[in-house]
Amino acid sequence: MPDRPVLRLKPKANARAIRRGAPWVFDNELVLDRRTKALAPGSIARLEDAERTPLGTVAVNTASRITGRMLDRDAEAVIDGAWLQGRLSRALALRERLYDAPFYRLVHAEGDGMPGVVIDRFGDTAVIQPNAAWAEVLLEPLTDALVAVTGVTNVLKNSGGRGRALEGLDDADAVLRGTAPDAPVPVAMNGATYMADLMGGQKTGLFYDQRDNHAFAARLAGDARVLDVFSHVGGFALAALAGGASRALAVDGSAPALDLATRGAEASGFADRFETRQGDAFATMEALAEEGATFDLVICDPPAFAPGKPALEKGLRAYERVARLAAPLVAEGGTLVLCSCSHAADLSAFTGACLRGIGRAHRWAQLLHTGGAGPDHPLLPQLAESGYLKALVFRL
Amino acid sequence: MPDRPVLRLKPKANARAIRRGAPWVFDNELVLDRRTKALAPGSIARLEDAERTPLGTVAVNTASRITGRMLDRDAEAVIDGAWLQGRLSRALALRERLYDAPFYRLVHAEGDGMPGVVIDRFGDTAVIQPNAAWAEVLLEPLTDALVAVTGVTNVLKNSGGRGRALEGLDDADAVLRGTAPDAPVPVAMNGATYMADLMGGQKTGLFYDQRDNHAFAARLAGDARVLDVFSHVGGFALAALAGGASRALAVDGSAPALDLATRGAEASGFADRFETRQGDAFATMEALAEEGATFDLVICDPPAFAPGKPALEKGLRAYERVARLAAPLVAEGGTLVLCSCSHAADLSAFTGACLRGIGRAHRWAQLLHTGGAGPDHPLLPQLAESGYLKALVFRL
Repeated sequence: MPDRPVLRLKPKANARAIRRGAPWVFDNELVLDRRTKALAPGSIARLEDAERTPLGTVAVNTASRITGRMLDRDAEAVIDGAWLQGRLSRALALRERLYDAPFYRLVHAEGDGMPGVVIDRFGDTAVIQPNAAWAEVLLEPLTDALVAVTGVTNVLKNSGGRGRALEGLDDADAVLRGTAPDAPVPVAMNGATYMADLMGGQKTGLFYDQRDNHAFAARLAGDARVLDVFSHVGGFALAALAGGASRALAVDGSAPALDLATRGAEASGFADRFETRQGDAFATMEALAEEGATFDLVICDPPAFAPGKPALEKGLRAYERVARLAAPLVAEGGTLVLCSCSHAADLSAFTGACLRGIGRAHRWAQLLHTGGAGPDHPLLPQLAESGYLKALVFRL
Repeated sequence: MPDRPVLRLKPKANARAIRRGAPWVFDNELVLDRRTKALAPGSIARLEDAERTPLGTVAVNTASRITGRMLDRDAEAVIDGAWLQGRLSRALALRERLYDAPFYRLVHAEGDGMPGVVIDRFGDTAVIQPNAAWAEVLLEPLTDALVAVTGVTNVLKNSGGRGRALEGLDDADAVLRGTAPDAPVPVAMNGATYMADLMGGQKTGLFYDQRDNHAFAARLAGDARVLDVFSHVGGFALAALAGGASRALAVDGSAPALDLATRGAEASGFADRFETRQGDAFATMEALAEEGATFDLVICDPPAFAPGKPALEKGLRAYERVARLAAPLVAEGGTLVLCSCSHAADLSAFTGACLRGIGRAHRWAQLLHTGGAGPDHPLLPQLAESGYLKALVFRL
């Protein structure tokens, strides 16, 4: 094996954290000499501490603040097709243990030992998000390995990830193998059928991370009147109908998303119990309150209001407002599910915002359940950032 | 209504926290004059702030540091049979929505608006733990209300709660209605049958709080060799067998608990796949490692090692040791479930201890799931102490 480049930590860098499992090496922790700066984005290097002790094999991107991403604790690991197949096989073994059908997140980036790489599987179609430079460089062998390990026919590239710009990568989608499905893909989860548009002009995809939280809410849905705000393609609403809800109203700002939700309701046999209302979520909740509407189960699963620390205060106020507007719509003894997918708002801050909003609506809450992302979204426990999803189930 | 006694906050007390939902008033927050000090434990009083604004109806116990416990936000609420029935009915409605059969925690103290009162239901038998003085005083009407609302035949009093001594209460068990079951009660959960000894000489009871965590572990149990350490009556082991485990070994220090586990395995039809080993958990894990034994799913659900803050450091070292001894017993790609029921060890501290232990065993972990107590253990979100149970599911 030819000598590989070396990335060396400064003496002040926290080598201990890296030894304990921290997967990222930031630019200010590294000796960035001329040779290192000349490394092409996505290069593979050996990471060493200041005393030249090897720490592992990393992917390098000097264009990113995350300059090194740990690929393997073996500093001599060869990152080739066999290595990629090993990682994918290990990820697949977990999902095959967890799920009856091949619809899941197959690779959850650092949590599956493939930094920056997200792969969602929809039967014989897989969608790769290569959100780090090394995966962009190795996209061909990665695609080969994915086909070899899973047997999928179609592989799509989704370049919409927010992380790609930080890595200096473009936003061009592509078909890497096979063809893009020419219609939404039906996905069976929790007794309902969802419609996932993977590559259409109105790409809306599907979020697997809420699957267990959908299932939990469905346990409380028997005979319930359900309101699903920020419904997207009907995530909570369809699961609640499968759980026996008497009817469900899905609210979203996106007409294409609601159209997919309606098609999902039809495919599930729930069309007669399902309605949609397109519009701004806040305005629609205010309008429903004015109409005197109440529901036994209300879910609010908004987009990330606090995607980063600068937006934290504003985001928490938005979560509080969601809770304040949603709580009056919950019948006495009913359930309110409030979700956040904001990295910056931790569980304690998010819970506080929800309680302030519920309190301002003059309601009292029991907390029945705190849910996170499903187990096809494993976390690297040393990377706090990887725990983003929070679902709080309150009874009012 | 005759004038009721008044409990008055000192000006420096945090009336705002109480208005926002904090359920406890400590002795140092209250004006404890001669008249207040003379109140019998369990007296009902009106709580007022320093400006004499009513805050609610509280139960008083000047023998306890928790001198006031909020019963009702209505300062004129009458705490009688009808009030007790109201609280019990509301609690029952939630459980009937959640569970098909009448086996659950019916009342979870502050989380169900009945401070200090725990009631577990086992079909037509209910077990009350009156861990606060007011419930001891009102035990007769509480028992009447419980029979009226649920229709149970037998009501037992369990005085083993740690909180009773702090309230100045005795530890005498009793049969309050009907008779004590003369044999362990079969309880169906997660596809297995558990045996609960409610009143025998070797009382071992049953913990409902882990039900959802048992179910989660069972999802990973297909064809697995399972080791359940601190097994008690077989909580995780029997659920794993119901989930398809090839065999399970239950380890516990208590022979009566393991006997109930074995009887549960027999009742479930799993006897041929179930073994027990009585002994110290730490020593048994070391012995298994020496034997070279490995398992696909290892669960450690120990008693509270850090029940209070003084025991925190020592407790965290014990959790670390559990993780260090358990990790080598997990096969590559297998699952390690580590639990804590310690109030004092919060999620972050407990996770840190587990990761140190796993690291010291030279293993790497993905975190698949973080579970808490099931939804029949609702939390009062304003009372951090009420969230005690943590189950971390790692893949090694």
